[in-house]
Amino acid sequence: MHDGFFQRLSSAVGSHGPLCVGLDPSAKLLSAWGLTDDATSAERLARTTIAAAQGAAGIVKVQVAFFERHGAAGYASLERVIADARAVGLVVIADAKRGDIRSTNEGYADAWLSDHSPLAVDALTVSCYLGIDAMTPVFELAHASGRGVFAVAASSNDEGRDLQTARQASGVTVESELLRALGVADERLGGAGAPPRCLGAVVGAQRRPDGLSAFDGPVLVPGIGAQGSGPAELGELLGAMSHRVVAVNVSRAILGAGPSPDAVRATISRLASELR
Amino acid sequence: MHDGFFQRLSSAVGSHGPLCVGLDPSAKLLSAWGLTDDATSAERLARTTIAAAQGAAGIVKVQVAFFERHGAAGYASLERVIADARAVGLVVIADAKRGDIRSTNEGYADAWLSDHSPLAVDALTVSCYLGIDAMTPVFELAHASGRGVFAVAASSNDEGRDLQTARQASGVTVESELLRALGVADERLGGAGAPPRCLGAVVGAQRRPDGLSAFDGPVLVPGIGAQGSGPAELGELLGAMSHRVVAVNVSRAILGAGPSPDAVRATISRLASELR
Repeated sequence: MHDGFFQRLSSAVGSHGPLCVGLDPSAKLLSAWGLTDDATSAERLARTTIAAAQGAAGIVKVQVAFFERHGAAGYASLERVIADARAVGLVVIADAKRGDIRSTNEGYADAWLSDHSPLAVDALTVSCYLGIDAMTPVFELAHASGRGVFAVAASSNDEGRDLQTARQASGVTVESELLRALGVADERLGGAGAPPRCLGAVVGAQRRPDGLSAFDGPVLVPGIGAQGSGPAELGELLGAMSHRVVAVNVSRAILGAGPSPDAVRATISRLASELR
Repeated sequence: MHDGFFQRLSSAVGSHGPLCVGLDPSAKLLSAWGLTDDATSAERLARTTIAAAQGAAGIVKVQVAFFERHGAAGYASLERVIADARAVGLVVIADAKRGDIRSTNEGYADAWLSDHSPLAVDALTVSCYLGIDAMTPVFELAHASGRGVFAVAASSNDEGRDLQTARQASGVTVESELLRALGVADERLGGAGAPPRCLGAVVGAQRRPDGLSAFDGPVLVPGIGAQGSGPAELGELLGAMSHRVVAVNVSRAILGAGPSPDAVRATISRLASELR
């Protein structure tokens, strides 16, 4: 790792735009590709898509759940998928939504953000029901290893709204407090220097949490297409955050074009230029 | 799976009391046991502890983070640890705090709660930042396969308090709303019959969320000892929930007695009788 995560992500977005290719080998998509439901097939779908993304997009996001459902064999496939994507220069985000108490989070940090781990990625998504401060070991290892974290602030799905808009004792909503706390933690990691901006947030395309305009970290936007957000909502969000580095994840629209590698590549190229 | 999860858990607690033996092969504990920091060692620590627990305790909880940090090799070890614990009749809880949007949760449900998965356990912990209703696929597969779920309501760590006590638009706190929603979801799964009580909650020993006394599902209590809760707080909680099935997790006090299997077994036996 030479540059920090923010520099690598910025460079990828500068070269190819914000498109993040979602690698989600769900049971349904394996079936749609005419593949058997096993780890080998999940790996094949993902690596076919990585090959199609090369040169057309700069970022991929692996959905860990769809490898974990194949157990250890799925994780062995996931290790090869991550290695493959990193070898061709893609920025790799592991979408795992990990999060626990502090001592357990040391384990998750080791798994995804340490140089010697076979699962090491550029950035990890985390979910903070147990408190943002409990994520400190993850934040610290991300910074130390030149990697990044995306904490879910305002998710794209409607089921999350009641919790994420609940008001803490301070009067601030959960999602806004998370954005604020991420900024504080990021500044602290920077010490006397510039903030590393290694701590990003997940914000659905249709969400506008208070504090978003003041948030300086990278933003990962899920849910384009399948989760109900359209290009108009996305355009507004991107406009509102034009000073920031944003990655826009698209999964089903891309993988649904398969199994033809050419069709997958054409879809990635079209979406990449639409988003640029 | 012949009985449902609630029956198996009740039977284990009836025979051995509420002690749940925490299998947390952290880097620190591997070192304290004089073991190298790898998947083989994590497996050895866990399986030594399972052998020590046999006949003395009825429930174990594996901390998935401490296997995930070894990648696919760690998951291969975890599969053997789960198989080992189930083979000797222990109720096995996977502490993974999984949680995402609905379609992704289908993947996590498959991983931990489906009969054909090599990671299949008796119950899975989940974390609901993305909303309790998004967990429906996990709840439904737990019920269909005779397994269980523990959703974190009020965690033992202090960093979680601000979020968990935030008030939703209805005026109810996040933790209390979660308990209420778990009860509603559980009743719905029961259909015209009795509630299956396959949906439990994680509640720290020192926490008393509103609605706890009305919550009928099983309760998993973490954080005894190392996380600052003492026997007095635990006694009060157990007294307040004497009509309910409760599992009390103890990890560091047990694993810290190692590496001598006899010392681990003596500690488990002592704690089991103290908690009964």
